[in-house]
Amino acid sequence: MVKRNQDIAKLQSSYLFAEIAKRKQEFLKENPDAQLISLGIGDTTQPIPDIITKAFIAEANKLNRSETYTGYEPSFGREEMRERIAEKMYNGAISPDEVFVSDGSKCDIGRLQILFGSNCTIGVQDPSYPAYVGSTVMTGKSGHTDKESGQYTGIRYLPCTPDNDFCPKAEDLQGVDVLYLCSPNNPTGQVFTKKQLEEYVSVARKHKIIIVYDTAYSAFIRDAKFPSSIYEIEGAKEVALETGSFSKFFGFTGVRLGWTVVPKALCFEDGTPVRDDWMKVMTTVYNAASNLAQAGGLAALTDEGMQAGKKLVDYYLHNVDTLREAVESTGLKCYGGVHAPYLWIDLDGQSSWEMFDKLLQEAHLVTTPGIGFGPSGEGFLRMSAFGTQEAIQEAARRITRLMQPA
Amino acid sequence: MVKRNQDIAKLQSSYLFAEIAKRKQEFLKENPDAQLISLGIGDTTQPIPDIITKAFIAEANKLNRSETYTGYEPSFGREEMRERIAEKMYNGAISPDEVFVSDGSKCDIGRLQILFGSNCTIGVQDPSYPAYVGSTVMTGKSGHTDKESGQYTGIRYLPCTPDNDFCPKAEDLQGVDVLYLCSPNNPTGQVFTKKQLEEYVSVARKHKIIIVYDTAYSAFIRDAKFPSSIYEIEGAKEVALETGSFSKFFGFTGVRLGWTVVPKALCFEDGTPVRDDWMKVMTTVYNAASNLAQAGGLAALTDEGMQAGKKLVDYYLHNVDTLREAVESTGLKCYGGVHAPYLWIDLDGQSSWEMFDKLLQEAHLVTTPGIGFGPSGEGFLRMSAFGTQEAIQEAARRITRLMQPA
Repeated sequence: MVKRNQDIAKLQSSYLFAEIAKRKQEFLKENPDAQLISLGIGDTTQPIPDIITKAFIAEANKLNRSETYTGYEPSFGREEMRERIAEKMYNGAISPDEVFVSDGSKCDIGRLQILFGSNCTIGVQDPSYPAYVGSTVMTGKSGHTDKESGQYTGIRYLPCTPDNDFCPKAEDLQGVDVLYLCSPNNPTGQVFTKKQLEEYVSVARKHKIIIVYDTAYSAFIRDAKFPSSIYEIEGAKEVALETGSFSKFFGFTGVRLGWTVVPKALCFEDGTPVRDDWMKVMTTVYNAASNLAQAGGLAALTDEGMQAGKKLVDYYLHNVDTLREAVESTGLKCYGGVHAPYLWIDLDGQSSWEMFDKLLQEAHLVTTPGIGFGPSGEGFLRMSAFGTQEAIQEAARRITRLMQPA
Repeated sequence: MVKRNQDIAKLQSSYLFAEIAKRKQEFLKENPDAQLISLGIGDTTQPIPDIITKAFIAEANKLNRSETYTGYEPSFGREEMRERIAEKMYNGAISPDEVFVSDGSKCDIGRLQILFGSNCTIGVQDPSYPAYVGSTVMTGKSGHTDKESGQYTGIRYLPCTPDNDFCPKAEDLQGVDVLYLCSPNNPTGQVFTKKQLEEYVSVARKHKIIIVYDTAYSAFIRDAKFPSSIYEIEGAKEVALETGSFSKFFGFTGVRLGWTVVPKALCFEDGTPVRDDWMKVMTTVYNAASNLAQAGGLAALTDEGMQAGKKLVDYYLHNVDTLREAVESTGLKCYGGVHAPYLWIDLDGQSSWEMFDKLLQEAHLVTTPGIGFGPSGEGFLRMSAFGTQEAIQEAARRITRLMQPA
C-alpha cells in the first residue's frame, strides 16, 4: 500500500490564505450583510490596460484561423519575450537566453525546489512569503515543526524585525545553501538598499550561497537608491537567480505570467551551470507559458505598455499612502508601505490573530496576521493596498475609528 | 558551496523532443529549402473553434474593465469549471470537488511527483511518454541508468510490445507503488479494453497500487468498448487518479488547460485521503489556471463546444487513417492509429534512429524514434497525425515511395 509522503505530512496548517478565507466565510455566514473590505491577500483590483487586452484579443483571433494558429510554445518562452524582458526589465544586463518565461513566480519557486533537491539548507527571511517555507518542507528539506519556536527544524529562519532594520546580519548566513530574499518585501514592505544588497552578494560569494531573489514587487520602487534587480550589484550573476512577475505590475494575478533569470555564470559546486539543470527541470515538469498570456506580456513590454503599467502601480502607491497615514494617526507604528504595496503594522503587544479577528468582527476589514508569515511576524499585521481607491478610503476611515495601541 | 542535485545529474540525455529539434535544425541548416513535414511531436495544427476564442475575447474585455476585472483565480479552478468537467467528461461519475483544474497534464504529472515523494516505486509502460520517467528520476525515485538495459534502476518498466498485445501482465505489477497508465497510449496508440482495465483495477486493489491514469487522448476513442475514463470501471475510485487535458481535444496545446481527478475515496496506507495532500501541493507550489484559458474551457464544455471539439478530433482521425493506409501499403506492420492520433510502426529489424534519420534525410519527414519512449520502443517509430490534411497526404505519398521493410 502506498505510504503517505512524510514531507507533506509534516506541513502543519493549511496554507495561510486558506485559513483566512475560512474565517472570512464563517464571518459572512453570521453577518451576510456586512460590507467587508479586503486588505488581505495581495490581489490586484484594477483593470488590465488596453494595449495588453488588445493583444490578448489579437492572439485569440490568431488561434481561431488556420493560417495563424500555433500549438505548443517554445519551452523557455518566446524568443521575443525573453529579449524584451532582458531589455526592459534588466536594461540588457542579462542575456535573453538567461530568461525563462513561466506561469508565475510562485510556480517557479516550486520548480526551484525540484532543482535544488532535498539535500540542501534553505534560509528564509522571517517573516516571509509562505510558499518558500511550504515548498521547502514539501520537498524534504526540513524536519518537523519545533513546538516551542513554531519553526521547522532544518530551515534557517533569519529574523527581520525593527531591531535589525529588517535586514538579517550577514554572519547569520553561514551554513545556508540557498537563501530566499524578497525586495520589496512581502510581507514587511521593506526594500533593500544597494549597500545592504552588496553585503549579501559579497557574503554569498564568500560562503558560496545561492540567492533566490524575488522581485515580484519591484515595480513599486520609485527611487534609484533601491535596486530593482539583484543584477544591479556587481558579481551577483555568480551567486543569484531572480524571479520576476507580471502579476502586480500589469494586473496579471489571474492571467499568470512570470519569469526566472538563471545566469550562465551561476554554477554548482562541481562546476555544472545551474542553468543546465534548470532547463532539464523546465522541459521535464513544465510545458511553457500560455500563448495568450505571452501575447499580452509582449504588449506590456513596449514603451506604451510600460507606461500603462506604471500608471497602474501609481494607483496602488497612492492607496498605500492613504492607508499608512490612517494607521499612523492611530498611534500604531508601521513599516514598509513606501516602495511597496504592503504596510507592516506593529501591534504594540497585541497578537496577530487577535487583531485580525478584531478588525474582521468590528471594522469588517480582512487583513493578514503577521504570524502567518513566520514566527517573527507575531505581533504584526500586514495590510495590502491593492483595493480600489474608494474601498481603501473607507478602510482608512474604519482604521482611524477602531484601531488603536493596546 | 551548493551541491548539484544528484537526482537531476542522473537524468541522462536531453529530453527526447529537444534532441529531435536539434537534428531537425542541423538538417535544415544543410538543406534550407527542404519542405519538411512534421509527423513528430504531437502538436495540434487546427484552429480553436469560434465558440472558444469568442470566450477568450469576452474574458479579455472583462479584464479590461473596472467593474468586471478579476484577480487571482480559485486555487483548484472555477467552481463552474469543476462542475462542467464532472458533468461533461465524467457524466457525473465523479464529484466537482474531486476535479482540480490546472495548466495541463504534463505540469500535473510533475506536481504528482512532489505529492508522492521520493520513497515509492514507480511503474511505467515501456514505451511511454518521457515525462513520467524524467520526473520520476528528477524527484529521487530511481537509481542511475543501467548501461546494459538503458533503464533507470528502481523504476519498473513494463514492456508493452506486440507479444503481449501492449498490455503488461498483472502479475508483473507486484512491488509497484504508483503505476502510470496511458490510454489511448502515447506513443503506441493502443487503447485498453474494458476487460483489460478491469484487470488492472482489480490488481491495484489487491496489491494497493495507486494508478495514475492519463487520458490526454481520450477524445479519440469512438467506440464505447474502450473506456474513456478509468472511473468507468467499478472500484477505480479507491485506486486511481486521472489526468485530463484540453490540449488535443480543443487545440489548447499552447493555451494550457487540463485537470486531475483525485477521488475522495483514494487513501494512503495511513488512511489520509490523497486528495488532502494534493490540495496542499496545489496551494503551495501552484497558483491556478489562467483566467483566459478557463474562460475558453468553460465555453468548450458546452454542448456546442463539445460538438466543435469532436469535429476537430475527427479531422485528425481522418489524417491517421490516411497515414495508416500508407504505412500498411509498404508492407511494414503498424499498431495503434484507430482510436488515437499515433501510429506505432514496427521497423522490421531496423533501428529507431536509423529510420528517423532516413526519413528525415530522404523523405524530409520528421518522426519520433520509438527508442526515445523507452527501451522497448527500439525498432519502432511513432508517427503523429496532427498535421494539416494536405501535409499528411503529401507525407503519405512520400512514405509509400520510400519506406520499406529491411
